[in-house]
Amino acid sequence: MSSTASAPALSPQAELFADLYELRMARAYRELGMAKVAVFSLFVRRLPQGRNFLLACGIEDLIDLLEGLRFGRTSIDYLRSLGEFPETFLDWLAGFRFSGTVHAMAEGTPVFAEEPLLEIVAPIAEGQMIETLAMNLVGLQTLLASKAARVVAAAAGRPVVDFGSRRAQGMDAAVAGARAFHIAGVTATSNLLAGARYGIPVAGTMAHSFVQAFGSEGEAFRAFARIYPETILLVDTYDTLDGVRRVAALAAEMGDAFRIRGVRLDSGDLLTLSLGARAILDAASLGRMQIFASGGLDEARIAALLGAGAPIDAFGVGTEMSVSGDAPALDLAYKLTAYADVGRTKLSAGKRILPGRKQVFRRMAQGVAIGDVIARDGEQIDGVPLLHPVMRDGRRLAPRSGLASLRAGAAVRLAELPTGLRALAPADPAYPVAISAALIAEERKVRDRVLAAVG
Amino acid sequence: MSSTASAPALSPQAELFADLYELRMARAYRELGMAKVAVFSLFVRRLPQGRNFLLACGIEDLIDLLEGLRFGRTSIDYLRSLGEFPETFLDWLAGFRFSGTVHAMAEGTPVFAEEPLLEIVAPIAEGQMIETLAMNLVGLQTLLASKAARVVAAAAGRPVVDFGSRRAQGMDAAVAGARAFHIAGVTATSNLLAGARYGIPVAGTMAHSFVQAFGSEGEAFRAFARIYPETILLVDTYDTLDGVRRVAALAAEMGDAFRIRGVRLDSGDLLTLSLGARAILDAASLGRMQIFASGGLDEARIAALLGAGAPIDAFGVGTEMSVSGDAPALDLAYKLTAYADVGRTKLSAGKRILPGRKQVFRRMAQGVAIGDVIARDGEQIDGVPLLHPVMRDGRRLAPRSGLASLRAGAAVRLAELPTGLRALAPADPAYPVAISAALIAEERKVRDRVLAAVG
Repeated sequence: MSSTASAPALSPQAELFADLYELRMARAYRELGMAKVAVFSLFVRRLPQGRNFLLACGIEDLIDLLEGLRFGRTSIDYLRSLGEFPETFLDWLAGFRFSGTVHAMAEGTPVFAEEPLLEIVAPIAEGQMIETLAMNLVGLQTLLASKAARVVAAAAGRPVVDFGSRRAQGMDAAVAGARAFHIAGVTATSNLLAGARYGIPVAGTMAHSFVQAFGSEGEAFRAFARIYPETILLVDTYDTLDGVRRVAALAAEMGDAFRIRGVRLDSGDLLTLSLGARAILDAASLGRMQIFASGGLDEARIAALLGAGAPIDAFGVGTEMSVSGDAPALDLAYKLTAYADVGRTKLSAGKRILPGRKQVFRRMAQGVAIGDVIARDGEQIDGVPLLHPVMRDGRRLAPRSGLASLRAGAAVRLAELPTGLRALAPADPAYPVAISAALIAEERKVRDRVLAAVG
Repeated sequence: MSSTASAPALSPQAELFADLYELRMARAYRELGMAKVAVFSLFVRRLPQGRNFLLACGIEDLIDLLEGLRFGRTSIDYLRSLGEFPETFLDWLAGFRFSGTVHAMAEGTPVFAEEPLLEIVAPIAEGQMIETLAMNLVGLQTLLASKAARVVAAAAGRPVVDFGSRRAQGMDAAVAGARAFHIAGVTATSNLLAGARYGIPVAGTMAHSFVQAFGSEGEAFRAFARIYPETILLVDTYDTLDGVRRVAALAAEMGDAFRIRGVRLDSGDLLTLSLGARAILDAASLGRMQIFASGGLDEARIAALLGAGAPIDAFGVGTEMSVSGDAPALDLAYKLTAYADVGRTKLSAGKRILPGRKQVFRRMAQGVAIGDVIARDGEQIDGVPLLHPVMRDGRRLAPRSGLASLRAGAAVRLAELPTGLRALAPADPAYPVAISAALIAEERKVRDRVLAAVG
């Protein structure tokens, strides 16, 4: 067992994290002598219902995985056992290194429908083989960072702690999710593996089970405070306000030795209970003590609590953030947009593909993003280009960015969005994303060519 | 890189897959001399909206992880770096082996609200430390198996293939999910890592990108058929029915050499298109060719298509099954129910805990399950007991069950449910789950004791 702060989470045998059809196509391309360069574009077809933007995330982890992708003996043996890959192809796999070039948005960049988060430029077999890996990694972290950005916005400057590991959809979702949350502005995670792997601050106090294991709540508080004098005490095991009174009694009993930082409310009507808890603490001259709330929270409940004046100082958010409850999947696509220098598309209903290599320009006015333009690569458009090369010929171009700098960058990019976009409600009007005249012309040309060939 | 068919998916450093508060409590229990045996119960508080049952899953993987749980040097060093664990505790962790006993439902058992899927009997620190691991692993696979059981039921005997890896919430969710799906009756997965790790059959054909990379669809079909003569061809890249006509033309051109097995429709109105495709194939004397449908499917859409008479022979199901779209999280709890041979509960609103060790009895009549009883351990109740010891003193009691036998067992258990329970609509009446008189009496006793101590 080993780990480094830079290793992507939970990725043994990532080379097999592929759909069978990808390797079947790779073999076909090779046998058919189709080795030219392809462009694959990773984008979201439409934003989830009610959302104003997504936050690009997961790209650094993908780049690390691509750089290290090798087909070990075990993997080759498994593929051989399927009985449909000839030895020549397995030999090629055994020597495989990803040799492509990757253009990507910086993690923490707000992104909109149809905008490429990532463009992969590689021999077609290679670009095809990494489809599922790229979609899963970037899709997961983008999904979770996007949800967390809303939770953080709702908390309006108060710390948010990720409590979701138990309900996340798997260990990978919990650990990579903690990373995405932190980039999006979440303060800390309860998950130790995420802390170890990515250097994210960890936080946590006590569970109901600790209180239950004692004869009474008071005994439990006294025992825990002896070992962790500055902890937060969980007060809702039996009756929340009685629990708070017990904390106040402990303070009176301990005098100057009492250094407990706060109380956590985890059930019931959090507005009423937080007001009650605040009153009890203040009456006991414990105005410095904080109120921490958790239990079934999401951005809407947090906004409602704060809007109603709940005196809550920090939030623990689990399930809804960890599975992106209102939108548990993105309409993410990874599509061939060029092969052998020729733009490609498809004509399936409702599934537009913008052909060729592209760039996204973000137009700014007085520090505010006023609209994006999706353009052909090489076009000169007014605005900040969002796609940058991050990997060339299979090698990353810069060391992995530190989490702190990604987090700071995300905060800056989010602050640049128009106010309405950062609100929880759907923005009206939505953020304008235009397609350049040259890209529209190219799209028409490619469609005409495809239609002619089809006809 | 290595893998065995029995290894749980993607679990390096599982010992750190814990919430900080669990290790904080473990340290406190040790310093306070609280080393007695505790019982922790894993159960779902309520079924997701609209669901009639859940399917227990993920237990074998958890047992493997528990058996192998060790705190390696890297993990200890990380914990030391947090600055809140004394060396005596870190030394204890370095020698840690899980020594508990586990009672569990067989994977593939339908389970209902408040029924323990799992009971952990262990020194309290140990039972506490594995909380997040147990909840995440068993929660994920139970969530996904439960969703898949509905999809499989809707397909009414037609094969269902898991296409969801790209949209699953992480690599772990994709791989462990494929296992859960297969146990629940899904035929095969597209994911090679799931195939390698668990021996699940893998399936897959071709993507739109392959068609796009050629000058015309006809060329692409011809090339792919040359390499994979018995493949299924994807026909909706440009126009679905034109694509089917092109397959028929290829059949005419190839004569006896034509062995393509079917066509896949991936977009558009799948009812109209499947009827159209069937007519074209039949008219070309290709009645033996199958129609495979995919693209945004879930159990409701599959049921609607088949109900309307769509001639679809097999389904590829992705996103909605892979994230359990209608219910992306379970209201799963892992609760202390006894410590030092004394039953424990809490009184938080809406969060009942049934105290002590328990057993679930399934009452059968003429091969049909007619109701469950949750009872105290040791009670003699008419019915089949569902909880069995699977691990004792930290060692599994039987070799890992093969996937085929778990899958067959799940099919038998599902077939025992009343017909209304197996339908997609909410069953009326719901499946009856009673609590034994002795357990109700014990619950009252424990609550009274707690209230007395609180008061």
